[in-house]
Amino acid sequence: MGDYSPTGFRALTWHDQAPAFRDGTDTPRGYLERCLATIAEREPVVRAWTAINEAGARAAADASTARWKAGRPLSPIDGMPIGIKDLLETRDMPTEMGCAAYKGNFPKRDNAAVRALRDAGAVVLGKTVTTELGGSHPGPTTNPFDPARTPGGSSSGSAAAVGARMVPAAIGTQVGGSIVRPAAYCGNVAIKPTMGGINRGERQATSMSTHGPHAGCVEDAWLVAMAIASRVGGDPGRVAFSGPAAPPAPLKPERLVVMETEGWAELDAGTKAAFATLLGRLEAAGVALIRRADHPLVERFERGINGARALCNAITGWENRWGTRNLVDQFPDGVSERAKQVLAKAEAMGVADYQDALAAREEAQLRHARIAPLADAVIGLACPGPAPLWGGDVPGQPLNPRPTGDFVFNAPSSMLFAPAVTVPLLAVEGMPVGVQVMAQPNQDARAAAIGRWLLQAAI
Amino acid sequence: MGDYSPTGFRALTWHDQAPAFRDGTDTPRGYLERCLATIAEREPVVRAWTAINEAGARAAADASTARWKAGRPLSPIDGMPIGIKDLLETRDMPTEMGCAAYKGNFPKRDNAAVRALRDAGAVVLGKTVTTELGGSHPGPTTNPFDPARTPGGSSSGSAAAVGARMVPAAIGTQVGGSIVRPAAYCGNVAIKPTMGGINRGERQATSMSTHGPHAGCVEDAWLVAMAIASRVGGDPGRVAFSGPAAPPAPLKPERLVVMETEGWAELDAGTKAAFATLLGRLEAAGVALIRRADHPLVERFERGINGARALCNAITGWENRWGTRNLVDQFPDGVSERAKQVLAKAEAMGVADYQDALAAREEAQLRHARIAPLADAVIGLACPGPAPLWGGDVPGQPLNPRPTGDFVFNAPSSMLFAPAVTVPLLAVEGMPVGVQVMAQPNQDARAAAIGRWLLQAAI
Repeated sequence: MGDYSPTGFRALTWHDQAPAFRDGTDTPRGYLERCLATIAEREPVVRAWTAINEAGARAAADASTARWKAGRPLSPIDGMPIGIKDLLETRDMPTEMGCAAYKGNFPKRDNAAVRALRDAGAVVLGKTVTTELGGSHPGPTTNPFDPARTPGGSSSGSAAAVGARMVPAAIGTQVGGSIVRPAAYCGNVAIKPTMGGINRGERQATSMSTHGPHAGCVEDAWLVAMAIASRVGGDPGRVAFSGPAAPPAPLKPERLVVMETEGWAELDAGTKAAFATLLGRLEAAGVALIRRADHPLVERFERGINGARALCNAITGWENRWGTRNLVDQFPDGVSERAKQVLAKAEAMGVADYQDALAAREEAQLRHARIAPLADAVIGLACPGPAPLWGGDVPGQPLNPRPTGDFVFNAPSSMLFAPAVTVPLLAVEGMPVGVQVMAQPNQDARAAAIGRWLLQAAI
Repeated sequence: MGDYSPTGFRALTWHDQAPAFRDGTDTPRGYLERCLATIAEREPVVRAWTAINEAGARAAADASTARWKAGRPLSPIDGMPIGIKDLLETRDMPTEMGCAAYKGNFPKRDNAAVRALRDAGAVVLGKTVTTELGGSHPGPTTNPFDPARTPGGSSSGSAAAVGARMVPAAIGTQVGGSIVRPAAYCGNVAIKPTMGGINRGERQATSMSTHGPHAGCVEDAWLVAMAIASRVGGDPGRVAFSGPAAPPAPLKPERLVVMETEGWAELDAGTKAAFATLLGRLEAAGVALIRRADHPLVERFERGINGARALCNAITGWENRWGTRNLVDQFPDGVSERAKQVLAKAEAMGVADYQDALAAREEAQLRHARIAPLADAVIGLACPGPAPLWGGDVPGQPLNPRPTGDFVFNAPSSMLFAPAVTVPLLAVEGMPVGVQVMAQPNQDARAAAIGRWLLQAAI
């Protein structure tokens, strides 16, 4: 049992500190030292990091301090200490991907998004723990609000570092639910952008993964995403994440579609009640809610995303199949049993099975497009209740298939290529539970604007 | 001056040997030994290979011989000796990408297409020379029909190895003109598939590159492409290359659009005359030809692909920008001056420039789709005349920007994501000049079928 409450918890933020950097009452170096102090205090239990480049970070923070002093910051996030999920390459730290086979891997290259962050003046402080290869096998990170619980995955360290106030922002990646779910378990805001919106650099292997920021507030998440996308754009051939340079102002929606997903039936009573209370508050504020029983197109949409977990697993399993097979052939003991089970499933698929999964995905995307005229956005839970307890696999027992929690509420936005913004609106069992706003593809700004309004109006 | 003629040259083929493998009058091991003998004879001048795994190939050929003997070949290309462009990873040979920075690079992994070829029983004989990183800086390969001339690029070694009858097929890759042009200069057949049709495995970095087979005949090229795509499918999220398992039967087109491209104005008189003679022969055979002056939609299509070279260079330069920057930062002396010039151009672009180039590409694709009802396919030259002479850069002179020839006739199919099949129909100055058939996306089988008919009817 944690003691989190959405009103009681004060997240670490960056954008509101800019005036102090300008007038010299605070400095990026001072901000960094406070982050390092928090890390020193909490890292022994939270275990969010795989590497920290303290010396490099201090030098970068000093350079940023001088730029702010001279009135010439490179961007609004100049000097911001930021964590990078350890799937992305960084030229100054190893990239081990939570996988024994990659132990010591140090390619000395910067992922395109990392390069953009450096160009924007951000302080690339360290690498954050990922589950093995971004899959289901967990790393050592614990939930910052209760160490007996998972932080979620696969962006475990990014979510926990932000939730523990170690850094104001961190980069995660999502292929099924790997940004939104851990953010929701850890009291973060996060933006899972429209598919393709942020250049994944060397990580182009799958058709529905995205990079995205975890942060303490929507404003910071927005500034980080824009700092990247305005410099390196989107994935090859894709529309870049775009919108206003400054964070979109809070927007009160007139109408919201309430998304249940197949997770609804599996939900605990406490979370159901908390979400119902929230929805009641929205209706009281004059927001019209459209549920699946209210409109056949919403019901059709829900049926399109039923089975989203299995669909995401099939598509991603197939797409990762050759890479994982190479790894297992080369390092038979360097890959977890969980990952090998996923590979075995993918190797039982044929080309036609994959094409069929793509067809189902496209149909679901059509169903999502058809509800666009009904409402401003979709609202739903961002995780199935509070983060589950996790103490490790039990020898002799079958492997827990989802030790970092269930991505049932996250698979829809992934397969729909839709932007999703999670905001920490609920507490259940004293733990954070996020609520997500999902918009149509390339309407990331709208999702962020509604998220800001919810944080102001709905807690 | 070469002595090539389309009727005189007899390419090495595979599919027609299957009856002999079945009845034991020939064996894959015997076939391989003949290939190795040709390589021993011609490689000192042609220089098509960066690595050859003779022992591995012999073992694979023996296993294949046993399967044919037992009446259980794994596929129609079981036992086929095949070259792999040295951009693709192979677990048993280095992958050096024609680039000093990658000297000794040996990741011991199989690209998805290579894995598929092995699963189909093919004999992965060696790695073929690529221009540096698939760009414009040439390797040591010479044209098999005249060593004073370029074989074309970037799939220089794949085209030359097939043209020199060293192997019946080789894998190339094209982002601008890197399969079709060298094939056309070297008397090959080649299929540049619909974008996304063949799984590129680890090589997903650009939005319009494709893997494709070079071969001595359409039948073999088709069998290779199908052997790969039926096992590993297309790129993530894309439709897999598909069609009949057996090579499509020759198809006489009723109507063909004649494509000029911006290369028409730059063409030499001999090539123009040879192409005109071919077109006259087609008309005499009853094929209706539709030129840009005949229909406003064809004129609109031509205007859409005008500037295709610059567009392809901009899109690909931007997409490769971060990878190349990492490489240059890490290995300042390991990358050619040519590649650094390309990087400098890309680094002068912004996100909006790239999005604008994508918009132009999409509009050209629309214009191509609109001519679909007018004809069965598009016909055009596959290279701007015979392969140019190339003796290396001249110290003190500016770098020749296109030492492996001009991709002006190839940029259109690349940017249109359209399948293109080149067939060796012409000779100019005693050198091969290819003619290409371009179809609508995912109509690879139609392009192959028309290519087969042209080889029968139009030489």
